[in-house]
Amino acid sequence: MKDRDIIEAVRRAARQEQFLDVVSREEAEKRFRAAVPHKPLAAETVELAAALGRVLAENLTAPIDLPPFDRSSVDGFAVRAADTAGASEPSPVRLRLNKEVLACGTAPALTVAGGSATAISTGGVVPRGADAVVMIENTAFGEDDSGPYVDIKRPASPGGFIAFAGSDIARGETALRQGLEITSREIGVLAACGLSSVSVVRRPRVGIISTGDELVPPGGDLPPGAIYDSNSAITAAAVRENGGEPVLFGIIRDDEDALATRVEKAIAETDLVVLSGGTSKGAGDVSHRILSKLGKPGIIVHGVALKPGKPICLAVARETPVIVLPGFPTSAIFTFHTFVTPLIRALAGLQPRGEDVVDAVLPVRAASEIGRTEYVMVSLGQTQEGLVAFPLGRGSGSVTAFSQADGFFSIDALADAADAGTPQSVHLIGKGLHVPDLVLAGSHDIGLDAVVSILARQGVHVRTLAIGSMGGLAALKRGECDLAPVHLLDPKTGLYNTPFLSEGLSLVPGWRRRQGVVFRKGDTRFEGKAARDAIASVAGDPDIILVNRNAGSGTRILLDGILSGQRPAGYANQPKSHNAVAAAVQQGRADWGMAIENVARLYGLGFLAVGDEHYDFILADSRRDRPAVQAFLNVLGSGEVRAALHALGFVPGDLALAGE
Amino acid sequence: MKDRDIIEAVRRAARQEQFLDVVSREEAEKRFRAAVPHKPLAAETVELAAALGRVLAENLTAPIDLPPFDRSSVDGFAVRAADTAGASEPSPVRLRLNKEVLACGTAPALTVAGGSATAISTGGVVPRGADAVVMIENTAFGEDDSGPYVDIKRPASPGGFIAFAGSDIARGETALRQGLEITSREIGVLAACGLSSVSVVRRPRVGIISTGDELVPPGGDLPPGAIYDSNSAITAAAVRENGGEPVLFGIIRDDEDALATRVEKAIAETDLVVLSGGTSKGAGDVSHRILSKLGKPGIIVHGVALKPGKPICLAVARETPVIVLPGFPTSAIFTFHTFVTPLIRALAGLQPRGEDVVDAVLPVRAASEIGRTEYVMVSLGQTQEGLVAFPLGRGSGSVTAFSQADGFFSIDALADAADAGTPQSVHLIGKGLHVPDLVLAGSHDIGLDAVVSILARQGVHVRTLAIGSMGGLAALKRGECDLAPVHLLDPKTGLYNTPFLSEGLSLVPGWRRRQGVVFRKGDTRFEGKAARDAIASVAGDPDIILVNRNAGSGTRILLDGILSGQRPAGYANQPKSHNAVAAAVQQGRADWGMAIENVARLYGLGFLAVGDEHYDFILADSRRDRPAVQAFLNVLGSGEVRAALHALGFVPGDLALAGE
Repeated sequence: MKDRDIIEAVRRAARQEQFLDVVSREEAEKRFRAAVPHKPLAAETVELAAALGRVLAENLTAPIDLPPFDRSSVDGFAVRAADTAGASEPSPVRLRLNKEVLACGTAPALTVAGGSATAISTGGVVPRGADAVVMIENTAFGEDDSGPYVDIKRPASPGGFIAFAGSDIARGETALRQGLEITSREIGVLAACGLSSVSVVRRPRVGIISTGDELVPPGGDLPPGAIYDSNSAITAAAVRENGGEPVLFGIIRDDEDALATRVEKAIAETDLVVLSGGTSKGAGDVSHRILSKLGKPGIIVHGVALKPGKPICLAVARETPVIVLPGFPTSAIFTFHTFVTPLIRALAGLQPRGEDVVDAVLPVRAASEIGRTEYVMVSLGQTQEGLVAFPLGRGSGSVTAFSQADGFFSIDALADAADAGTPQSVHLIGKGLHVPDLVLAGSHDIGLDAVVSILARQGVHVRTLAIGSMGGLAALKRGECDLAPVHLLDPKTGLYNTPFLSEGLSLVPGWRRRQGVVFRKGDTRFEGKAARDAIASVAGDPDIILVNRNAGSGTRILLDGILSGQRPAGYANQPKSHNAVAAAVQQGRADWGMAIENVARLYGLGFLAVGDEHYDFILADSRRDRPAVQAFLNVLGSGEVRAALHALGFVPGDLALAGE
Repeated sequence: MKDRDIIEAVRRAARQEQFLDVVSREEAEKRFRAAVPHKPLAAETVELAAALGRVLAENLTAPIDLPPFDRSSVDGFAVRAADTAGASEPSPVRLRLNKEVLACGTAPALTVAGGSATAISTGGVVPRGADAVVMIENTAFGEDDSGPYVDIKRPASPGGFIAFAGSDIARGETALRQGLEITSREIGVLAACGLSSVSVVRRPRVGIISTGDELVPPGGDLPPGAIYDSNSAITAAAVRENGGEPVLFGIIRDDEDALATRVEKAIAETDLVVLSGGTSKGAGDVSHRILSKLGKPGIIVHGVALKPGKPICLAVARETPVIVLPGFPTSAIFTFHTFVTPLIRALAGLQPRGEDVVDAVLPVRAASEIGRTEYVMVSLGQTQEGLVAFPLGRGSGSVTAFSQADGFFSIDALADAADAGTPQSVHLIGKGLHVPDLVLAGSHDIGLDAVVSILARQGVHVRTLAIGSMGGLAALKRGECDLAPVHLLDPKTGLYNTPFLSEGLSLVPGWRRRQGVVFRKGDTRFEGKAARDAIASVAGDPDIILVNRNAGSGTRILLDGILSGQRPAGYANQPKSHNAVAAAVQQGRADWGMAIENVARLYGLGFLAVGDEHYDFILADSRRDRPAVQAFLNVLGSGEVRAALHALGFVPGDLALAGE
């Protein structure tokens, strides 16, 4: 690449911001609603079996009475109530039996004259002349010289045990109202009225296009630098959840002509088009240029002062709304629910999505950018004082933030933070609030998954919050969790975890993980050497790059001890996990680092052992008697967990303590 | 039919009770759970696009890191943080630009050496050597004599604006747990992990058979005595709502061989069979005989002490559970949710259905049968003191009870009633509690539908409770509704409604409905006569049968006035609605009655006018200012409602008052 080309290329990559004309969320909603009618689509007729979840397009005027005739609600005898006056067990009234038995589904032929009765089944048609039914339990029947009779042992009241025609639904009455969402209960009413099909609001067809050079469809191989397209799948599913019908138009590279052609096709074939930009700003740029050319009114809003979600673009092309979501998953989902969900539901005739809000205390400070309404994803926990909301802090690029969050709260555009200890209104995501039985907050480890899986099978709902060992210890002391999984090395004593205990806290032994140097197999600078020798020989070479760990992590302390003051190239590269270290080495961004053995194996890396790290649990004594804590302690000591830990290459803690 | 045959036929129709061996609900559940494993079915693999709403059969262990590489979260320049120390707006640090631009989806080729920087897009791969990214907003770039450069105006911190590999999901970590219901959020995680298919719990196939000679499938003609089969449709929909797949086996007559063959087929092809008996006990009888012959363990429970739902039968035939629901719709749905829903959800791997319970006061006494737990369907209303629960009182034969109820409460088996004024725990049906904006309690009329429809379009949620004029007036005085629609004739004054007003109540004029004698067209005993003449001529004939109305109804009072003491044949036949009167005449159970003109037209009956009835609204003055009441008053006077009333043959009230 030539010098001049670089500058040009940088300019091209950077230029999208000039199109943004950021407005508030309220202004964006106002403009979008003014430009796009948020009203139910036209009606269509569907078979009853396909009507579940659809929305009634018209009032249902009952075409028949329900029941359609005066119906007996018991097995017994149809009589004239006046004939049974004074009847009792010792002196029953004897009526002559008419010569028919009114089973279900048969129309009566005979009139019940005074002094007579007709046998009738539950559901049978009450015959002419009868005005009540007597339950069979209050009768005796047989034959005497005059023929068959029934003895009535209790007086009937007029209308007794008769469900009159139309008493459930009257013909001509509005039985179901337009706009109602059809559940099994409404299906029952429709079927009982004899309808085999029903007029419902047409489902909006929502065209979905993903754009971005870096996107690969799930199921394919993942080349370096690429990511799987999750926005198409999640958008399609969210469209379905809100009463729409997704139509996938695939992944388009950041190519203006190809994208323009596909957008034209989508506009022609659907009611609404959702583009999710690639993560690059260039992608948004291309979408913007295309939307500018599709005709009036064109772009309504480009840029909204909310986080996540700023670069959203709302447009209308030839009466079809087109929405360009930001590429990062959390931003995409958030803006989808802010702008697209209400439109889809309105087109589908569904009520706006109900929102559940709970109050919770924010245990830590959450920073925010002034000038944008910021939405913070949180995980909820229960303390004795009420709910607490832990910010998940995963950022707009996270795919899991939305799936792991219980809800979110907002920080006003004028504030630079929400302070620790302040109450927040948390909007719940998903189906209501499920406070976990057991909360583990601290360092995460793959071995913990085995423990949690077994607990889950036992019905114990566990929440694990990966907030680091020190964060977990602080949360434990604040009463926000039951146990803190930690691997904290005390530099003074060289001991793990026990030096960090204080009054009211106990150690529950976990397991040991082998730490060591990871490198790409075949790298002769490391292969076959002892860990400390290898480190000594590469630490001074500016071309051999280290991937370090974050300050305060056990691994960092271990490595710092070995380096004793040296600062190899890459020392400042400080990710927070074993996986990130292994990935950096595997992908060649660095040449070596420190990680645990099973992660090295997972990435096919070489491994030079340095020592063992203790991954234990600190327990708040006040919580020891909780059933979920007891279940955790039992599972931790079980043979199944020990086997799982061995398979992962870990050494269960009690063995280690026993002097292994 | 011969005399002896009658007795035999009555015996046959009556004999099912002998099989019932009634147990408590708890005992029934215990036996059923002991006989039928309530556990998830085996796994199957489905495409991601078909996974929404399914249940994960296995833990998802992340096959890749997310992000898969150290990713830039902004547009800017990848640098070594140490190079930017001390940088500021007035004295920026100048770095040389490396000759590549890292757009999304491209793998870096060059290392960021000390003193250099590489342009990178949001989502780009952080290159080897770099440990931070500087936002483009804090830079300026250009060319000087040494070539392209970038000036850094703010120091970068190590790791700044980098999302490290695996920081969202770490490879090997349990990203989603077995047993989770897949929503759009989980779809996103699965797609981001690159999965195009997923292992889910197989959906239970539920065979559905309706039995009964009286059943006709929706869409067909309805012969006399027949009813439409609503249980198949409602059961199929409820199966879907709970994660199962309904398989319909049609309607079978009460024929033992035909039913046995169909049940055998259903057992062979499905995981669970639900029979819904016809309304006759004979139908249940046939099902019972068949189930007794299908092999061990056979019938587990037959008869449960609950109402509605007593005659339910739970069986297991060759490991396939078979449940015979009672035939009456409310009983069928209730027992379905009691015994079948938990099983389907367990087989599908879904959590038990959540239940919302609210406290509400019962305003009127609800009677109950001792010895059975009785469930009472209620409609909820809001008063100043809290929620009130009106029993719907529609009985187990009702199709609408379940669709119109907000919830139900139970009366203990040992109690004979729940008293007026007692608090009750109401289990909500459907999607949460939606207290209506406006409650109208009293007499129902078809004209009211027009008013309510218009209000519904305006977003006003109206609840109409058909509890009769006097019931509505009482509810209004207790503060349980906003308006009471009434048509109350005061026999002393001959006036409608106004004599019933008291302190704090006002009359809102509604409309007039023409009352008259209804008869089958062509019946020369009525055709062409004046109403009073016709009544005088038929009232004494024992073969000409009247269908009367309930005591206290305006129509009854009108007719009693004309009859002045006479008691024609059928006088004791006293249904509660115009429709029931018209249906009885149309179907030949009676020959004449009193009803309103538009109902006579609806049933194609002849009509001899007698006089006009006033259908008005009594308003609690204390509620007049509520927005929903104001909306009601506005709509009532609107041209649209007046037109609708005219079309129904009614005369709007204000015209009537004006002396029309």
